[in-house]
Amino acid sequence: MWPALRRRTRLLDAAAELISEQGTVHVPLSEIVARAKCNQALVKYHYGNKEGLLVALLSRDAGAGVRRLHRLLELDVPTAEKFRMHIAGTVRTYAEYPYWNRLMHFLIAEGTPEAREKVRKFLVEPVIEFHTALLAQGVKEGAFKPIDPIFFHLCIQGTCDQLFSARSSLRYGFGKEAVDEAMRKRFVDQITDLLLTGLMQPKRSGARPSARARKEKK
Amino acid sequence: MWPALRRRTRLLDAAAELISEQGTVHVPLSEIVARAKCNQALVKYHYGNKEGLLVALLSRDAGAGVRRLHRLLELDVPTAEKFRMHIAGTVRTYAEYPYWNRLMHFLIAEGTPEAREKVRKFLVEPVIEFHTALLAQGVKEGAFKPIDPIFFHLCIQGTCDQLFSARSSLRYGFGKEAVDEAMRKRFVDQITDLLLTGLMQPKRSGARPSARARKEKK
Repeated sequence: MWPALRRRTRLLDAAAELISEQGTVHVPLSEIVARAKCNQALVKYHYGNKEGLLVALLSRDAGAGVRRLHRLLELDVPTAEKFRMHIAGTVRTYAEYPYWNRLMHFLIAEGTPEAREKVRKFLVEPVIEFHTALLAQGVKEGAFKPIDPIFFHLCIQGTCDQLFSARSSLRYGFGKEAVDEAMRKRFVDQITDLLLTGLMQPKRSGARPSARARKEKK
Repeated sequence: MWPALRRRTRLLDAAAELISEQGTVHVPLSEIVARAKCNQALVKYHYGNKEGLLVALLSRDAGAGVRRLHRLLELDVPTAEKFRMHIAGTVRTYAEYPYWNRLMHFLIAEGTPEAREKVRKFLVEPVIEFHTALLAQGVKEGAFKPIDPIFFHLCIQGTCDQLFSARSSLRYGFGKEAVDEAMRKRFVDQITDLLLTGLMQPKRSGARPSARARKEKK
């Protein structure tokens, strides 16, 4: 790898490591350049400023993630199975890149308009488009109820997000120090089962899944 | 109201207003005291520092919310109905206090150990205890499947959270400028239906809700 490219990559890797280690995106730029064995002028040269560096970091991993979503949509398997694979994939991504979730929320909530616009284009919109298309496939297939794509998106995104962003709840409320692989597996199994059952089109005859809920609501 | 008490309340109200208006908790203390027509010495006197003021603000509203949860748990109605009321109540709370969600996430993620400990005691633990008890009631009643209380909590909290924390997704991806009352109502209806159907204990005979999912997974 060329030295300049190597330094660019080192800066991204250093930022990713420090955000993961310290559990916050508010890592001083001086620590990032020290870890990357670079100087601040290089950050300015390659990324403009610290925010540019953070956007580049999120973008680097988002590209591969979005391509996976496109491939998943094209797979020749039932939508319910794609749904399960998507939940598993999202949880795996968050586990593999512990800074991802935090960085995404920070840039969307506190970033400059330019940063938000970039995150919208390379991450927010592609994920929403994927969820909308997945729901449409499921409805067309007769597997899913036609619900509002917004709520479909919020439910998937929110639940998976929470597994990683609510670390304090897990630690304090449930005594879970970390989300380990066994817990991630149980999460994918139970949440997929819960959401898929909820999403499914009720059968025309026989016991309808929501009949009991309706009766109890009265 | 006594002058000192009025000043304390004015400081909390000013912080709440500014966080809501600016969409960030990073409001300078100087702006808060200017809006409250106080001086910084009063913040030190009443709350110690800015973080103390923010903790007091979250705590003020959390108290009433937690008492509502206790009353809900004691109500003599089916668990499914309590569940619906809880989702509706959570969404109403986030809509009524637009700073709540943002403040809670900030204090848990970036607060000092003392602040986190307080938020844990007056908010995180009571909500987890409520969710655990609600799930247990539903399982005992034969209405809910026995799922892990952690996932029950994450699913409710994450989905409701996302409706308000993912404002950028809603704006950019779905062209929704604000979460208005009509949208909140549709959210409560559709999400409650989805989650309740997913949570329900499958009937012993007839078409089981998850049979189709199992078949499709093969």
